[in-house]
Amino acid sequence: MAEFMTETEARSSGVPRPGTPGEPPEKAGDGAAGPLDGHEAAAQLERARALVDPELRAAVESLPGSMRRIASYHFGWQHADGTPAAGNAGKAIRPALVLAAAAALGGPAARAAAVPAAAAVELVHNFTLLHDDVMDRDATRRHRPTAWTVFGDADAILAGDALQALALRLLAEAPHPASVPAAARLAACVVELCEGQHADTDLERCAPDAVTLDEVLAMAEAKTGALLGCACALGALYAGAGEEEVAALDGFGRQAGLAFQLIDDVIGIWGDPRHTGKPAGADLAARKKSLPVVAALTSGTPAAAELAALYGTPYREEEAEAGELARTALAVERAGGRDWAQAEAADRMARAMQELARAVPDPEAAGGLLALAEFVTRRTN
Amino acid sequence: MAEFMTETEARSSGVPRPGTPGEPPEKAGDGAAGPLDGHEAAAQLERARALVDPELRAAVESLPGSMRRIASYHFGWQHADGTPAAGNAGKAIRPALVLAAAAALGGPAARAAAVPAAAAVELVHNFTLLHDDVMDRDATRRHRPTAWTVFGDADAILAGDALQALALRLLAEAPHPASVPAAARLAACVVELCEGQHADTDLERCAPDAVTLDEVLAMAEAKTGALLGCACALGALYAGAGEEEVAALDGFGRQAGLAFQLIDDVIGIWGDPRHTGKPAGADLAARKKSLPVVAALTSGTPAAAELAALYGTPYREEEAEAGELARTALAVERAGGRDWAQAEAADRMARAMQELARAVPDPEAAGGLLALAEFVTRRTN
Repeated sequence: MAEFMTETEARSSGVPRPGTPGEPPEKAGDGAAGPLDGHEAAAQLERARALVDPELRAAVESLPGSMRRIASYHFGWQHADGTPAAGNAGKAIRPALVLAAAAALGGPAARAAAVPAAAAVELVHNFTLLHDDVMDRDATRRHRPTAWTVFGDADAILAGDALQALALRLLAEAPHPASVPAAARLAACVVELCEGQHADTDLERCAPDAVTLDEVLAMAEAKTGALLGCACALGALYAGAGEEEVAALDGFGRQAGLAFQLIDDVIGIWGDPRHTGKPAGADLAARKKSLPVVAALTSGTPAAAELAALYGTPYREEEAEAGELARTALAVERAGGRDWAQAEAADRMARAMQELARAVPDPEAAGGLLALAEFVTRRTN
Repeated sequence: MAEFMTETEARSSGVPRPGTPGEPPEKAGDGAAGPLDGHEAAAQLERARALVDPELRAAVESLPGSMRRIASYHFGWQHADGTPAAGNAGKAIRPALVLAAAAALGGPAARAAAVPAAAAVELVHNFTLLHDDVMDRDATRRHRPTAWTVFGDADAILAGDALQALALRLLAEAPHPASVPAAARLAACVVELCEGQHADTDLERCAPDAVTLDEVLAMAEAKTGALLGCACALGALYAGAGEEEVAALDGFGRQAGLAFQLIDDVIGIWGDPRHTGKPAGADLAARKKSLPVVAALTSGTPAAAELAALYGTPYREEEAEAGELARTALAVERAGGRDWAQAEAADRMARAMQELARAVPDPEAAGGLLALAEFVTRRTN
């Protein structure tokens, strides 16, 4: 679930900047740069990684031998033979959201207190990656062979199980009034992530004309939005926030997550292969029912019928006539899939901003979260 | 992991009654019958099922659609098509241990408070069953097709993930001072269960002469003893017990669990097929490195060499000469595997009794736990 952050680390997006109603601040947070130029977000991610990594490594070190070895490989800290590796554990978006939410509502003290929660969210994220890779038979993750290809299915499943347990142990062992509600919330989020992954595999098995836009949006919210929302909510809990603020920050993360997924799906069809690391149209070749595709398929246009016909047969590179993928992409575009996705992303970002303003009325304090949301939905580097 | 309770529901054992030092009570607990005749244990199991099932069903009902359906099938509450089923969710040994431990140290009020913990332990047990069945490719569980054969690997993995999360959510949502340490302890136990399952699959891949008795004992403790120990420890926590009592009850459950595993392994070789539901020698045909087998293999006797030769080639029913399994069983016996397992089981039960006496000096109060330990290690029905 929610493997997007690593997939898109090297991606660049040319989609229009989503609307930002509620007059979000031009400058905010505790960085010198404005939130919208990406520098502050990058600094936040780096700082989150620096704060959370020691906690994360200590937690993984506490695992018994084999589970530790598989987890250390998965995080990029070790090679398959157990020797140390340079490490590429991803962008730390979720931990950064936990810490930014805590700081926005409770300042530096809350941010410090929320470090175990940030590590717990990252552990849950990586538990889902380990299991999703087994289920989806994905062979590559963060430019390395996935854990199941190295250690086998059973060990990859077990290591994922252990990381989920470790996440909840971290929360339970952190002596803080927020520990209990945070653990309950994170556990509930895991259930939602499971349902989202189930819906995803289920939708991919459906005929192209049997999938509704509401279904795909609900799936994306459960699979992608839920953990981003939970990260923000946990940060709010560690800042001692009330129920309404916690719920609003959860909503902020969810909506930003959906905006991200929409834009990620646009890139998955029209993105620049030099930046994405996979050829443009890869999602189309896989006949993936991404959000723009389902919007197109359900548009009732002539292009929708053409797209349904293309999606009705599997793509075979050796047999496909030249330009088939380009023709498929054009059908999605003509059926309005691209425009819809971009407008929907802008709408979701607008909703995210509303939730953020509800939870954190002070624009200065909200700047860190705003910068992160902009960062994940509009990469400019 | 720890699938023994359901496997052995219909088993009968002729192993000698383990020693019970510390003069355990002849009559104890709140049942009218003595703890050693099995009636009190049966009554306790029935009462545990009655107390825990509503909590368990409510928790599973709270899951989103597909996860609920898979879990309801796994628990035996629904058929594969979603229609209600009579239900055979197993013997509730672990919930009964939680409740008996709480009652032993805190009386009826503690028992009532511990119901969510009892349900949480049962959820963790069932999460491990769902995943183990996927990893081990086991096709039958509680006389029905396993969840992965009905819903596929991905959904069985996801439902297991969801049950683990649900267990920890139950604890976190129960407003009780024991919630936090109980959640931390249960999460740590899950890590141990993962390591135990890893060790089990790992040992099965090893050459017969490459496995030591210590390794198999450590595996059995992690895979089988840990959750029984955790169940008792959680009960103690909900009774407000101190660290020493909690640790002693954990030790009691672990040692009783090991005693059980030893006796289960004896039954797996010499058990009566009319009672076990699988032919005598099934473990030998599968070349399983159970505890008596490894004791025999590492005995340095001539029979050990014969056994190693037999285990060195896979068993093929159609090719095996008549009586090969009987000859293998005899080799285990001649190499001392059977005697060792029975003596070790008695020793483990003795240790369990010592731990129990340490945690619950009052024999009357200890009766319920004693009856359960006797029940799982010496089935007489």
